Amino acid sequence: MKTMENLLSERILSTPSSFVRSILKTAMDPEIISFAGGLPNPVSFPQEELLKSMDSIVKTFGSTVFQYSITAGIVELRKYIADRYNKKFGLNYTEDNVLITTGSQQALDLISKALLDKNDGVILEKPSYLGAIQVFSQYQPKFYTVDLAENGLNTAQLKDVLKNDIKMMYAIPEFQNPTGLTYSAENREEIFEIIKDKDIVLIEDDPYGELRFTGKHLPYIGAGKFKNSIVLGSFSKVVTPGMRTGFILSENKELLKHISIAKEASDLHTNVFSQYLIWDYLMTNNFESHIAKITELYKKQAHAMLSAMDKYFPKNVKYTRPDGGMFLWVTLPEGVSSLKLFPKALEKKVAFVPGDPFYINKKDVNTMRLNYTNADCETIEEGIKRLGELLAEI
Amino acid sequence: MKTMENLLSERILSTPSSFVRSILKTAMDPEIISFAGGLPNPVSFPQEELLKSMDSIVKTFGSTVFQYSITAGIVELRKYIADRYNKKFGLNYTEDNVLITTGSQQALDLISKALLDKNDGVILEKPSYLGAIQVFSQYQPKFYTVDLAENGLNTAQLKDVLKNDIKMMYAIPEFQNPTGLTYSAENREEIFEIIKDKDIVLIEDDPYGELRFTGKHLPYIGAGKFKNSIVLGSFSKVVTPGMRTGFILSENKELLKHISIAKEASDLHTNVFSQYLIWDYLMTNNFESHIAKITELYKKQAHAMLSAMDKYFPKNVKYTRPDGGMFLWVTLPEGVSSLKLFPKALEKKVAFVPGDPFYINKKDVNTMRLNYTNADCETIEEGIKRLGELLAEI
Repeated sequence: MKTMENLLSERILSTPSSFVRSILKTAMDPEIISFAGGLPNPVSFPQEELLKSMDSIVKTFGSTVFQYSITAGIVELRKYIADRYNKKFGLNYTEDNVLITTGSQQALDLISKALLDKNDGVILEKPSYLGAIQVFSQYQPKFYTVDLAENGLNTAQLKDVLKNDIKMMYAIPEFQNPTGLTYSAENREEIFEIIKDKDIVLIEDDPYGELRFTGKHLPYIGAGKFKNSIVLGSFSKVVTPGMRTGFILSENKELLKHISIAKEASDLHTNVFSQYLIWDYLMTNNFESHIAKITELYKKQAHAMLSAMDKYFPKNVKYTRPDGGMFLWVTLPEGVSSLKLFPKALEKKVAFVPGDPFYINKKDVNTMRLNYTNADCETIEEGIKRLGELLAEI
Repeated sequence: MKTMENLLSERILSTPSSFVRSILKTAMDPEIISFAGGLPNPVSFPQEELLKSMDSIVKTFGSTVFQYSITAGIVELRKYIADRYNKKFGLNYTEDNVLITTGSQQALDLISKALLDKNDGVILEKPSYLGAIQVFSQYQPKFYTVDLAENGLNTAQLKDVLKNDIKMMYAIPEFQNPTGLTYSAENREEIFEIIKDKDIVLIEDDPYGELRFTGKHLPYIGAGKFKNSIVLGSFSKVVTPGMRTGFILSENKELLKHISIAKEASDLHTNVFSQYLIWDYLMTNNFESHIAKITELYKKQAHAMLSAMDKYFPKNVKYTRPDGGMFLWVTLPEGVSSLKLFPKALEKKVAFVPGDPFYINKKDVNTMRLNYTNADCETIEEGIKRLGELLAEI
């Protein structure tokens, strides 16, 4: 008789379960101050406006918003997205350059499906988004990592790993998850020069791009100029994550066509009600002022966290100072395992994400991710104070 | 320089694009009477009630319906589903036996992810659902098919293919897509006896089960008694397909755990707003009378189609007489290719799905699928009349 392991696929046995989601339960204990999740602040959900749009789309489109729909996504929303990116980044997209996905997470899955055979090379930042590591792992690629520093990727390392057989490169140049770091304009330009003649696909994951509270928007590395460029976007951080609506942008329509076949096989199409809803919301409200409200809040929260860290953290603990997004990254003295610190933090009723799951095969690292968007400023200060007490003991 | 083909994965190059979706465009020409789609009649979308429930869930649950949520799906909906199946089929499920998916199509993808390595054996009905063939193909399995007849699967053939190394078996015992056939109680019992000691996973896909308009509900083949049983269900045909809400039921929690890891990596969780919405709708309305309204209509439509076929089709054309669901299956005289008939049918402004995509590697078959749920009875008669004229010429 076969054991369960014999029935399961090699791929699923080599896929790590998300550490973040497994600790979410702990972090849901209301007594715990959690910096562990990646939850947008509910202020970013325009509830009343969305309720109005629900009425409106049912009146306007009737049964269409409840019926099966096309795989690419509704043309109204795809046009809106293309226009927005064209205006913001000087690009030249049409609705045919856009594929609506069931959140950005699905975009990563679909791209992997369309590109990755076992042992294909994938370049990641070090550290990288754990959800990306998880989804790519299912396709059993060979991972290559490139150090991420203050101003962006280590380009000498990038040149070096590109000597291997590489299919795709995954990067989060803006307010990176987990570090909160942003690639400088120069770094982006350098990266483009290095990859421009390579036969790889470049994925620029940009779920936080709208959440800039300091400085100016920067151009993408590849969008508009690199033949196999893919940009990922999402409404999760600026309208609602619960409705799982994200999108893929690419100038390479042949590539998009194959990703679209993967989409069709995976879930036919993205929730069409949510697509109409988000589109109607965007058309009938001042989106920019809504975004301004969110970034203003996140700026305060980030400031509250950084000020508290300046005050309560020992001097040998380092941390990033993000210009936007939802996370910052703490580096403890060498040799200190943040994973081993985690249960002690829980005892003090404060939670974070230990750095381990953001690396490929690295254990007991001295880094941790903190989220600042989902607690008020006083709670943030109290949580950092508790964490500071703990760090003083190490 | 690599061609696009070199960048793409073997899996995606071996995945057929859905014929149905590629002809949907043609069939959307309002002059064409289309029996090609698989669209539920909009009468099955309780629009007013859903609008009320939208208000209600936002008032009751606030930002929770817009926020990230857990991978398994909201406990309220999982409990409702477990209870419904327990009552209807004498099963013993709890919410822990239920995983909410982004439609049934995603359920097939997730199960494949958790189970299939390249060249693993998969048993399908012959013919089978083309969307299942498409999604399984992405995992490059070895397909084995078993003939489907009036009363169910050919059990001698089933015994025979089970001599191969098989990981899973996929069946639609109730109002099968594409044939409209239903396995008899005896056939189900026989199948269970054949597979009960086998180390395979049995997937019983049941999206149409609620749509019975003749006869009585039958027990599942494996649910409640087979260790690796999976049952798939969906709200697409009885509430709304546009919201992509389906579910997996299994007594094997170890198996569900691994499917759940695949779910997490694929899209984190299913649209949580839609989950609350459907749950609230189910709790505050008379679901049985809603279902009765749908089945009454479909019964009339099926009757209209069958009567018209009796009247207008040549005697050498055979067809199934479904007890429920959305489709029936036409068999033309041997040697007649329905695919070659297709463009001629379009000239006569009527569309169907040629049988080819429902088979593994079979071309120019003499079968076709007709859908009767999405046109009124007069239109159905007119469409069948046109088709009859065409068939008279072959």
